[in-house]
Amino acid sequence: MDTIKAINSRRSIKSFDKNHKMTQQEIIQLLELAILSPTSYNIQNWRFVTITDQSIKDKLSELSHGQQHVSEASLVIILCADLNSWDKDPQRYWENIPEEPRIALINSLRNSYSGKPGLQRDEAMRSCGMAAQTIMIAARSMGYDTCPMKGFDYNKVGGAINLPDDHVISMMVVVGKRTKDPSPRGGQLPLSEITFKNHF
Amino acid sequence: MDTIKAINSRRSIKSFDKNHKMTQQEIIQLLELAILSPTSYNIQNWRFVTITDQSIKDKLSELSHGQQHVSEASLVIILCADLNSWDKDPQRYWENIPEEPRIALINSLRNSYSGKPGLQRDEAMRSCGMAAQTIMIAARSMGYDTCPMKGFDYNKVGGAINLPDDHVISMMVVVGKRTKDPSPRGGQLPLSEITFKNHF
Repeated sequence: MDTIKAINSRRSIKSFDKNHKMTQQEIIQLLELAILSPTSYNIQNWRFVTITDQSIKDKLSELSHGQQHVSEASLVIILCADLNSWDKDPQRYWENIPEEPRIALINSLRNSYSGKPGLQRDEAMRSCGMAAQTIMIAARSMGYDTCPMKGFDYNKVGGAINLPDDHVISMMVVVGKRTKDPSPRGGQLPLSEITFKNHF
Repeated sequence: MDTIKAINSRRSIKSFDKNHKMTQQEIIQLLELAILSPTSYNIQNWRFVTITDQSIKDKLSELSHGQQHVSEASLVIILCADLNSWDKDPQRYWENIPEEPRIALINSLRNSYSGKPGLQRDEAMRSCGMAAQTIMIAARSMGYDTCPMKGFDYNKVGGAINLPDDHVISMMVVVGKRTKDPSPRGGQLPLSEITFKNHF
């Protein structure tokens, strides 16, 4: 599908065919595209928990104020981030570049993130945001629809997926075959109100 | 351009043709696609500051540790967010839906964000992350390249753009015509290390 069409036709869909199953190949394709999303210093801090089992989707639906589309979706992806990825063998992130710039990058990376929990968390949200949008646009082009979600109990979902202590959940994206078209967009702000030339 | 090709070929580019100018129409097209990105409760919390003036790009380059591609890019977009967008006439965000669900949404929105500065900031980073990736993929499909950036002096850039007190900068995306192809990807983590079935 053309990129502009995929971006234009992406909508948050709330009704999916609960009998539809994605193939393993489709799920892998989606994840392989997701991990082409950029991250600061290439730290690849995102971690993706994928769920296709009906009983777990039903549990996640319960933890999302009973929202049915979590149960109905073919795939639920919980986008998490490792807050300490910057400190875990960072040479892996630039193994294909010469040693000298690699060492300089590692030093710069440590200077940037060490002792800065606020920045580590910002990076988790930013990176997952970018990856989530890749997933949503890619899914659209593969004939699927999606819904990004944060309306769930983060603590309980964290418990259900054994979220490590130094990880956070950023958001959830559900993927499936739509059974109902969305309503017109709710109320878009005009470009003139949210864009600024040179300064506010 | 096909969506999958746009996602695959998006790379962080560091060398742009400094003589290339984007048309106003292209810039508007890019921004109109960006604002189709989802936001929680449709709060549309992003704010986009666009810069094409050479003297301001040069200043931003200085504030980005002298990184040349900020000067060379045709367009610099500073992705900001209004932390209080949830509280500013939220009926605008669902003006096209009936009154009863609209009022319920407004109440739910206020419950979600009121008195939660951490969540407001998370939302800024998430929303801007999603919009940034839309911009980068859309730009690719329009024949441009991009580089997402956070390596700049946030306080000084905030000052330069008159950032309002209740706004934050999330990141910067520079857009332009590449003059040098990127090196191979630095070191991608295998899917097996960053994806998990059902739980960690």
